[in-house]
Amino acid sequence: MMTETNIQTAGLTAVSEVRRREANAVAIDRMLTADPYLVDVAPARDVVPGMTDSTILTSGAPLRWEQYTGGQRRSVLNAVVYEGLADSLPEAEAAITAGRVRVRSTQQHSCVGSVAGIYTASMPVLVVEERTFGSRAFCNLYEGQSRYKLNYGAYDDEVRDGLRWLEHAMGPVLSAALKLTGPIPLKPMMARAVRLGDELHSRNTAGTLLFERELTPALTELRTTAMADAVAQVVRFFRENDYTFLRMSMAAAKAIADAAHGVAASSVVTGMVINCESFAIRVSGLGDNWFTGAHPDLDGRFFDGFGPDDAEWIGGESCFTEVVGLGGFAQAAAPALQAYQGGSFDRMLQNNRALYDITLAEHPQFLLPTLDFRGSPVGIDVAQVLATGRPPMIDGGLAGKGGGQIGAGLLVPRLDTFHAAFDAYRAQYDPTPGEETVV
Amino acid sequence: MMTETNIQTAGLTAVSEVRRREANAVAIDRMLTADPYLVDVAPARDVVPGMTDSTILTSGAPLRWEQYTGGQRRSVLNAVVYEGLADSLPEAEAAITAGRVRVRSTQQHSCVGSVAGIYTASMPVLVVEERTFGSRAFCNLYEGQSRYKLNYGAYDDEVRDGLRWLEHAMGPVLSAALKLTGPIPLKPMMARAVRLGDELHSRNTAGTLLFERELTPALTELRTTAMADAVAQVVRFFRENDYTFLRMSMAAAKAIADAAHGVAASSVVTGMVINCESFAIRVSGLGDNWFTGAHPDLDGRFFDGFGPDDAEWIGGESCFTEVVGLGGFAQAAAPALQAYQGGSFDRMLQNNRALYDITLAEHPQFLLPTLDFRGSPVGIDVAQVLATGRPPMIDGGLAGKGGGQIGAGLLVPRLDTFHAAFDAYRAQYDPTPGEETVV
Repeated sequence: MMTETNIQTAGLTAVSEVRRREANAVAIDRMLTADPYLVDVAPARDVVPGMTDSTILTSGAPLRWEQYTGGQRRSVLNAVVYEGLADSLPEAEAAITAGRVRVRSTQQHSCVGSVAGIYTASMPVLVVEERTFGSRAFCNLYEGQSRYKLNYGAYDDEVRDGLRWLEHAMGPVLSAALKLTGPIPLKPMMARAVRLGDELHSRNTAGTLLFERELTPALTELRTTAMADAVAQVVRFFRENDYTFLRMSMAAAKAIADAAHGVAASSVVTGMVINCESFAIRVSGLGDNWFTGAHPDLDGRFFDGFGPDDAEWIGGESCFTEVVGLGGFAQAAAPALQAYQGGSFDRMLQNNRALYDITLAEHPQFLLPTLDFRGSPVGIDVAQVLATGRPPMIDGGLAGKGGGQIGAGLLVPRLDTFHAAFDAYRAQYDPTPGEETVV
Repeated sequence: MMTETNIQTAGLTAVSEVRRREANAVAIDRMLTADPYLVDVAPARDVVPGMTDSTILTSGAPLRWEQYTGGQRRSVLNAVVYEGLADSLPEAEAAITAGRVRVRSTQQHSCVGSVAGIYTASMPVLVVEERTFGSRAFCNLYEGQSRYKLNYGAYDDEVRDGLRWLEHAMGPVLSAALKLTGPIPLKPMMARAVRLGDELHSRNTAGTLLFERELTPALTELRTTAMADAVAQVVRFFRENDYTFLRMSMAAAKAIADAAHGVAASSVVTGMVINCESFAIRVSGLGDNWFTGAHPDLDGRFFDGFGPDDAEWIGGESCFTEVVGLGGFAQAAAPALQAYQGGSFDRMLQNNRALYDITLAEHPQFLLPTLDFRGSPVGIDVAQVLATGRPPMIDGGLAGKGGGQIGAGLLVPRLDTFHAAFDAYRAQYDPTPGEETVV
């Protein structure tokens, strides 16, 4: 397994390299045996650790308030208004500056954010319990298929009413349904969705169908209660919103990645996040540091009337799915995705195959039918990324400058982030770089 | 479009060839514009034309009773007992011989049969209305995932109880649900299932999920009625039986194929069926004749403990799906099928691509994501099959000699059937063969 070439590429002493590989074996084992269950849906204030009535969470490595710009800043301000903590954007601005409202990163609260990834205290969140090692992760709910959503930087009466509906109908119905079904194991459902053509980042149609089926007995049961109208609305929402399951997939991915985090000397990537300033990664053996770099390159397909110049980086953490072997790492499972984000199927196969070069394992459950049921590449190794010069590939939605979604496509992180992480790795775990004693 | 080579291959005079092509254009247009709706579920006796209380239908070109052998004969006799027309197999035999019970082909009654394709008067059938040209087709219901089913030549108390449950629970619930939903257009659902990895012959997982979703609002509604228990059972059946939608797909395929049937001078295949004696095809311009030949070659994957010697031909008409551009003709859509019937994904792509050589069109709705959304090959032309020497390819389940399913795989019809059909075509439409006047 350990070759001279790789040791030299990693640029570590042989002793450090042996330790790195042993640590990676532990981290990948944790990533593959993590077992996320959906246990509840509840308002963020009741379940998210450290959440308060006056906390707003947003995607990406933590920033100071003055560093938030453009659409992501606007989203946070709109969230302050939505939550009733201010009556206008200037008041919201003042409330944050005065410290009456605090802005934190989702990553500081075990949450994972879609695009701007805005959380307020009232928003219902999926509560996912990881049952092999024991931790919790959270994701709030899909706003629906409109291009205009708070998490895409848009806010108006319609956006607000949609969010209120999630609070007053979707959240309570899901919570009641889960009390009837009991905790739902997400991994088997995700594995099945991958066999049905989802990669569970930009395509979630099968996952949504499977999740809906799982809840159907409970929903039919609730049809006989006072919740009947809300239940009918929820059923309609599922039917109209194929993306619903993304949030379950994201919460599960966050829980799985967290399980693999914190293994000393491991160089496995356990998080990838975006904010308005940077792309950032977290590494299993490097604590809670986020290593930042330039935003990814973009190979996208734009909705009619939009182009690359209209895109804006307003945040995004759905690439936690890529961290655990889904999304771009399972694109071969989702040929239908071409219609959404461009490319050809041959290209998707090539892309997917290339990712085995930068990962530690083939996923035992996420099997890719078009690669003759080979497991998806999983466990991004910072050292392998640098040795091969191949970055990860991320399926993602694209936000526009004016707010709203304007397309979808492949995001390709640049290597600077990985260099920054590996420099830190070397500093921490290989105190005598250059003195290689290859055995 | 008309080339000298093709004209010579077809062996028709130029005048006949022009007429053949014009007729085929009409037939394929009918096949592509046919629009099947599921309108009801009702006992066969109430809706199937010509059905009586003492009629048993079975798959394949019509045979005389003495010609039915092995598992197909046994299935018919068991059906007589199931329907209460006799108390034992010898009595059933006597009832048929005496003419008190008549045995007919499904094809004489607008029905389509899965494997042995047994219909009795009490069995609930899907009623499909083709709304562009106006006709009806019928298919009875899936018995569930057990290897042992009446349509696989097996019969015991469990098989009987399962069939009774279809009569008393599944049929009435579906009928009541359809009254609430109104007629369900099947083609969009089928097109969507193809995008979700079904080829709608041997893989129907997505179709079943989509069908279930379509019914969910009605089923939740019915949960408040006296039908509540049956509804819960139906929901559980859907969940446990991914093959459920095959019957909807088959009924739709039969309706679509029937729409393309009866165009004078067309050489398009409008039916493929199997019985214990033969494989048979029907041709649009050749009336209600079934042209027969040897059984297909078999490239199958057998369940543990079984092999090719255990297989028996007991009937089958699910290959109507192949007639309309599904099944083997859409296998590239269903890479996950390898796990069920063997092969590799590359082989499936090759197989699927080869079928464009024997078909007249690319389906405008059944799009294959792994072929970059090319429409599936549709409209098998007897002349093209003979000119290329390429037979169609059929995804199918395999029945065992002792009853029960023993595997699944690719069935490859032999050319003799197509020669027989084209000989008849020439005799009817090209009275002066050999006198070619190529223009």
